[in-house]
Amino acid sequence: MGLDPAIERFPSVLPQKPESIFEFNRQIIDATHDLVCAYKPQIAYFAAQGAEDALTRTIAYIHDNYPAIPVILDAKRGDIGSTARQYAAEAFVRYGADAVTVNPYMGYDSVEPFLEYGDKGVVLLCRTSNKGAADIQDLLVDSTPLYEKVAAMIAGKWNKNNNCLIVVGATWPEQMQRLRSLVGEMPFLVPGVGAQGGDVEKLVTAGKTADGTGLLVSASRSIIYAGSGPDFAENARRAALELRDLINRYR
Amino acid sequence: MGLDPAIERFPSVLPQKPESIFEFNRQIIDATHDLVCAYKPQIAYFAAQGAEDALTRTIAYIHDNYPAIPVILDAKRGDIGSTARQYAAEAFVRYGADAVTVNPYMGYDSVEPFLEYGDKGVVLLCRTSNKGAADIQDLLVDSTPLYEKVAAMIAGKWNKNNNCLIVVGATWPEQMQRLRSLVGEMPFLVPGVGAQGGDVEKLVTAGKTADGTGLLVSASRSIIYAGSGPDFAENARRAALELRDLINRYR
Repeated sequence: MGLDPAIERFPSVLPQKPESIFEFNRQIIDATHDLVCAYKPQIAYFAAQGAEDALTRTIAYIHDNYPAIPVILDAKRGDIGSTARQYAAEAFVRYGADAVTVNPYMGYDSVEPFLEYGDKGVVLLCRTSNKGAADIQDLLVDSTPLYEKVAAMIAGKWNKNNNCLIVVGATWPEQMQRLRSLVGEMPFLVPGVGAQGGDVEKLVTAGKTADGTGLLVSASRSIIYAGSGPDFAENARRAALELRDLINRYR
Repeated sequence: MGLDPAIERFPSVLPQKPESIFEFNRQIIDATHDLVCAYKPQIAYFAAQGAEDALTRTIAYIHDNYPAIPVILDAKRGDIGSTARQYAAEAFVRYGADAVTVNPYMGYDSVEPFLEYGDKGVVLLCRTSNKGAADIQDLLVDSTPLYEKVAAMIAGKWNKNNNCLIVVGATWPEQMQRLRSLVGEMPFLVPGVGAQGGDVEKLVTAGKTADGTGLLVSASRSIIYAGSGPDFAENARRAALELRDLINRYR
């Protein structure tokens, strides 16, 4: 479940202020913890509000109360090695995230400082869920789309600590099927279900591994804003339950 | 001038603590403001230390005291549109930066929320300065390196508000020359001089526009850590002066 706390969309029972972010997240987490495989806070929603403290508290709350649930910090960082070390420290030391999303465009040495945290996950953008993904990711290199080249690099040299995952948008089941055949059992983080319109049957069928796993299907807005009244957390639970059952139907 | 305040490299007169970051920056800025065309704080060095406040103060200090000098926030952000809007707010509203670095891998719609701030600069990664840049950026698309395709996209559709710049590493003068011929007068942000070893004569000759401008040559560590004693700011000034004069020699 993605945690994208946009304060202007908060339910009427919570003041639309940065100070409400933690409380919003806490109620959503308490209402859904038995339904999710991971939480994915999106750092931009905290950073735009100067609410780093709410992010720290949200991650600590998950770890303290539901220690079996990993936290993926969605930050899409990437820079030269000396700077990437600082970003890795931001994600893994400061916030204590269990995994972080990283942009591969700058190449291996920009990702290595993240990969060196062998007990942490590094979730690399491959074929993203947005329309504009095609602009660069679909360009053909030796008759092969760039994102397949990226996936092959990741599954090869980049994954030597066996801690890589790739982002494959739910909106592209054909590409997902091809990627599954290329990278073996590597887990996919799959955004784009819900508000972005991805079809669950198609994506699960296309992306699952032989044993019916391998997918972290991520929905954010369609769940956390399922309700806007005092019962917003119950509505989030209902939406999460529906999505979970839908996913499991096609595994 | 890049501001990459790594507290473990601070001069002995400043405690190696996040609380010293603003003071370190302030002394460097006061000592160099008449020599630079822009300051480029790298957000990762602040974020790793939980020092967002020092970043806010640093940018405000530049704007308040040296209002002619733009601030480029080096953040290399990029995400789907709804999240990119939050990142754009982080850079331009929260921090008041004049420009921000952005990763183009997710395509046009991931960059559009930044571009819409028509009075702000959007500095897109094209051919970065690190060794690993070749892994993805040099892949051939129709016999053309990917980074040239990216540059052409940026110079076309992406630059409709005439507020784009591209990152071209100082370490690649041949690629820079080719890029200059592709994108006209678009300014280049050129990291990789100094600690990363880029050759100033080669890069200025390769990258300058017909009137001898068009380059924001960026050095960070080689200047801000030129000295480690109580006179660290004077040493930074000396290093900045040398680099400025060297750049101007080849314009």
